[in-house]
Amino acid sequence: MRGKFIVLEGPDRCGKSTQAKLLYNYLLEQGFDVVLTREPGGTPAAEKIRQIVLEPDLDIRPVAELMLYEASRAQHTQEKIIPALQEGKIVICERYTMSTCAYQGYARGLDLDMIETLNNIATTGLKPDLTLVFLMSDKYFSSRGEYLFSDRLEREDREFRENMRRGYKNMVGRTENAHLIDADADVDVIREKVIALLKQHHITDLCPSVKS
Amino acid sequence: MRGKFIVLEGPDRCGKSTQAKLLYNYLLEQGFDVVLTREPGGTPAAEKIRQIVLEPDLDIRPVAELMLYEASRAQHTQEKIIPALQEGKIVICERYTMSTCAYQGYARGLDLDMIETLNNIATTGLKPDLTLVFLMSDKYFSSRGEYLFSDRLEREDREFRENMRRGYKNMVGRTENAHLIDADADVDVIREKVIALLKQHHITDLCPSVKS
Repeated sequence: MRGKFIVLEGPDRCGKSTQAKLLYNYLLEQGFDVVLTREPGGTPAAEKIRQIVLEPDLDIRPVAELMLYEASRAQHTQEKIIPALQEGKIVICERYTMSTCAYQGYARGLDLDMIETLNNIATTGLKPDLTLVFLMSDKYFSSRGEYLFSDRLEREDREFRENMRRGYKNMVGRTENAHLIDADADVDVIREKVIALLKQHHITDLCPSVKS
Repeated sequence: MRGKFIVLEGPDRCGKSTQAKLLYNYLLEQGFDVVLTREPGGTPAAEKIRQIVLEPDLDIRPVAELMLYEASRAQHTQEKIIPALQEGKIVICERYTMSTCAYQGYARGLDLDMIETLNNIATTGLKPDLTLVFLMSDKYFSSRGEYLFSDRLEREDREFRENMRRGYKNMVGRTENAHLIDADADVDVIREKVIALLKQHHITDLCPSVKS
């Protein structure tokens, strides 16, 4: 029996990690077998690729950057996500194909069809059962601390962030089972919203695992 | 004025590096501006990618491996090869797109159309002015020392090598300006053959640089 695949998308510091952990704990408490993972990374090889992509002063051209993300994605999807789904588990993943469209496509200007071709090759066409896209207002985003802007991606300017946010919004509109979540809201309000969406999409209709 | 782009292809230990250096020195002596480089690698980011690809015990799936080669290729082509050609230099490069078709396509069984799509994205369509493919007989290949088989790619078996060699031969047949070179021959015989092919393809019709 195939498990369920939940993806949390959105820019850095939108609260994805916090909500991913809350959701993970919620599902564990309900008795489900759950895997919490992230992109780029999630396996030994993919984590090594992540280190290259996030190195602040390395000259990496946009197409090379794109290929690195896709390499990491291919490894992670095939080594970790697909086997877990085949074992009937619920997989929660921070970032997946939509982030690449928003960052490399809408924000950096690479061709979206090219990105979607690469996304399909890397994932062998695996789509999430539910995609939650966390977006906060730019003002709020900045107030979470420019001082944290330590890596190459995060030093990008305001226009870049606006294009990226527009990209996420457009992608939600044309992606099945995707929802926009107001990341300015209180953490508990968001958590309840996430759980409601899980129920709406029948994620929790899976049988919980029998605890030993 | 655009320079010239020479690629040396073939399996490991076929003598590519030796011939690349001999050719580099020959062209320098003739007064040309020459860049000698290699794949995977050739730039700081690409060398970091190379380290991942060649790590012997890392679990890397075929599609992830392919994407890493293409990432390295995109960086190397855009950061090093294209700028040198734009400055009118002769670029000698060990390995390029044909190696990916031979290794990942013919030997590992990935779809060749997919590989060619990725090759085109990574190189923005840049084709060599001359491709020299060095192939030795399998018997001779083995005699150059199995003890050297230290990395993941090089531990592959005989069938893998045969498929790869068949791949190179097929690719030479359908690539413009590509020639097969018998790598079992003596190093000086090969060097003369290489120089003859350079002249035949008008590589040396470029004006040598004025020495200061």
